[in-house]
Amino acid sequence: MSELDLIRFFRKYPQGHPWLKVGPGHDCAILKWDADRDLAFKIDQIVEDTHFVLAGPEAASPMEVGWKAVAKALSDIAAAGAEPVAATVAVHLRKGLGDAWARELHGGIAACCEGYGLALAGGDITSGNGPASVCVSMIGQCTKDGAWTRGGAMPGDVLVLTGQIGGSRGAAKKHLIFEPRIKEARAIREAVGAGVHACIDVTDGLSRDAGHLCAESGCGVEIDEAALPIHPDALAMEKAGQGEALEHALGDGEDFELLLAIEHAAADRLLAGWKLATPLTRIGRVTKASSGRTLKRKAGAIEALPDRGYEHGT
Amino acid sequence: MSELDLIRFFRKYPQGHPWLKVGPGHDCAILKWDADRDLAFKIDQIVEDTHFVLAGPEAASPMEVGWKAVAKALSDIAAAGAEPVAATVAVHLRKGLGDAWARELHGGIAACCEGYGLALAGGDITSGNGPASVCVSMIGQCTKDGAWTRGGAMPGDVLVLTGQIGGSRGAAKKHLIFEPRIKEARAIREAVGAGVHACIDVTDGLSRDAGHLCAESGCGVEIDEAALPIHPDALAMEKAGQGEALEHALGDGEDFELLLAIEHAAADRLLAGWKLATPLTRIGRVTKASSGRTLKRKAGAIEALPDRGYEHGT
Repeated sequence: MSELDLIRFFRKYPQGHPWLKVGPGHDCAILKWDADRDLAFKIDQIVEDTHFVLAGPEAASPMEVGWKAVAKALSDIAAAGAEPVAATVAVHLRKGLGDAWARELHGGIAACCEGYGLALAGGDITSGNGPASVCVSMIGQCTKDGAWTRGGAMPGDVLVLTGQIGGSRGAAKKHLIFEPRIKEARAIREAVGAGVHACIDVTDGLSRDAGHLCAESGCGVEIDEAALPIHPDALAMEKAGQGEALEHALGDGEDFELLLAIEHAAADRLLAGWKLATPLTRIGRVTKASSGRTLKRKAGAIEALPDRGYEHGT
Repeated sequence: MSELDLIRFFRKYPQGHPWLKVGPGHDCAILKWDADRDLAFKIDQIVEDTHFVLAGPEAASPMEVGWKAVAKALSDIAAAGAEPVAATVAVHLRKGLGDAWARELHGGIAACCEGYGLALAGGDITSGNGPASVCVSMIGQCTKDGAWTRGGAMPGDVLVLTGQIGGSRGAAKKHLIFEPRIKEARAIREAVGAGVHACIDVTDGLSRDAGHLCAESGCGVEIDEAALPIHPDALAMEKAGQGEALEHALGDGEDFELLLAIEHAAADRLLAGWKLATPLTRIGRVTKASSGRTLKRKAGAIEALPDRGYEHGT
């Protein structure tokens, strides 16, 4: 049973709870809470040897592990278009990591919480023989417009991407230390409100995550190769003979950028008025489901978008 | 660094968040949310070989593991006097446990959520070489009276305990399959409202948890040996030569009963009108901090209450 099978299996749980508006299958669960503002609720974990390693050339520092654990959950809150409020953290310490390691881990967790205005509300710690892991749960508050989900993209929408994509495990190790797109999500929300039809954060790779969006929205996508804002680390990897930059842009996981489907006129307005330093790029369009997922090559040919990407936990 | 040291260390994080009313150190974090109802927020994890074993005479079934993970967090929601709303679950599967195991684990998680009216709102699954673990995050809604915490017990209060204590790892394996005291907490709240001054759920052992309550409230306690509702499993263990029943009652962890400090007249009223099947027992009283934690023996002698109990993660 692969992780994806199991996730599907978990989704079968009956969801007829009166407060649950959006359940498993999206970046955050959305619960009805106050009369006018929903609550976003998320759990996420990172595990040694799956999401980070502690030895060798790619070793993460404990500060980086703590940061990544919190930032990864923040990225899901951003993808729901919500404002982060509070986090709780459960840590499993592998025996032998030592006090200094634990203290620095805490430093990374606290730094990310403080940087994003999160209350670090509680935690739990165990130690044992297993790989180290950090599990973060987070709650956020939605605006009166409600949450963004993976569903709702419509043919004719524009696909917009924050930041640059690919090479997350390259020189900058940006899968470890990254800025989740909370500020960018807020700016997009304020600029176009309900013009955002769907959103997902890129964790499994652009191609695969575009597929998740298509599956939940019942649509297709066409991604424009010429428009892709490829990260310099992906270009450097190509130069070093470590695979094509395009492959990295489409397939690398853990970019933690936002992929949004935005109503056409709203997207035009948004892109024209964009003032933040983080790039915001039109990378394609939403199509009918029957068109599938396609890649428009630079020379103009339309190819099927390969279903490659990072499958967590395998 | 022991787990308790680390927990202390984690508490040092500055708590000056405008929404955070009660932070680390209590059974749940309490956040200001709506105008009139606070939100209780909790994370908890159970880890193979620390909180359950999968082989040998004490082996837990995957159903039991799933139930325990959810029920343990529910016990904290009960200790905050809150109503459970939603849970998210992060599972780490040890490779080799297999599909049927995962499915049965999910069955235990879902059964406990359904039994307590919780929305199973989301989840995350990884697999790897480590021990299996289940991390549960939960949110609950407080009443207009606010949450119960470990702070607030006052000399003269009555100590009240739900259920029977000790022998949680005895024949009934009640550390695995137990009913968290949500219904009992609700009945107590409805009967005496603000008459409850403090509450904790018994996870580290009655003696140690009474100590947590004293530490947060700035008080002492006197527990009356003759009044202790000792569980039949603890009595059976004494008979089988596995330690004194009193030792089990004071020191065993994971009883998941509620220990409350209740204003004297309110406690009288509560106990006189108690109608639920779960026993509710006056087991002692709150004293001044300078009196320390004491045990009144059956013969009348007053002894210091030993600081024994189950230390998680060691």
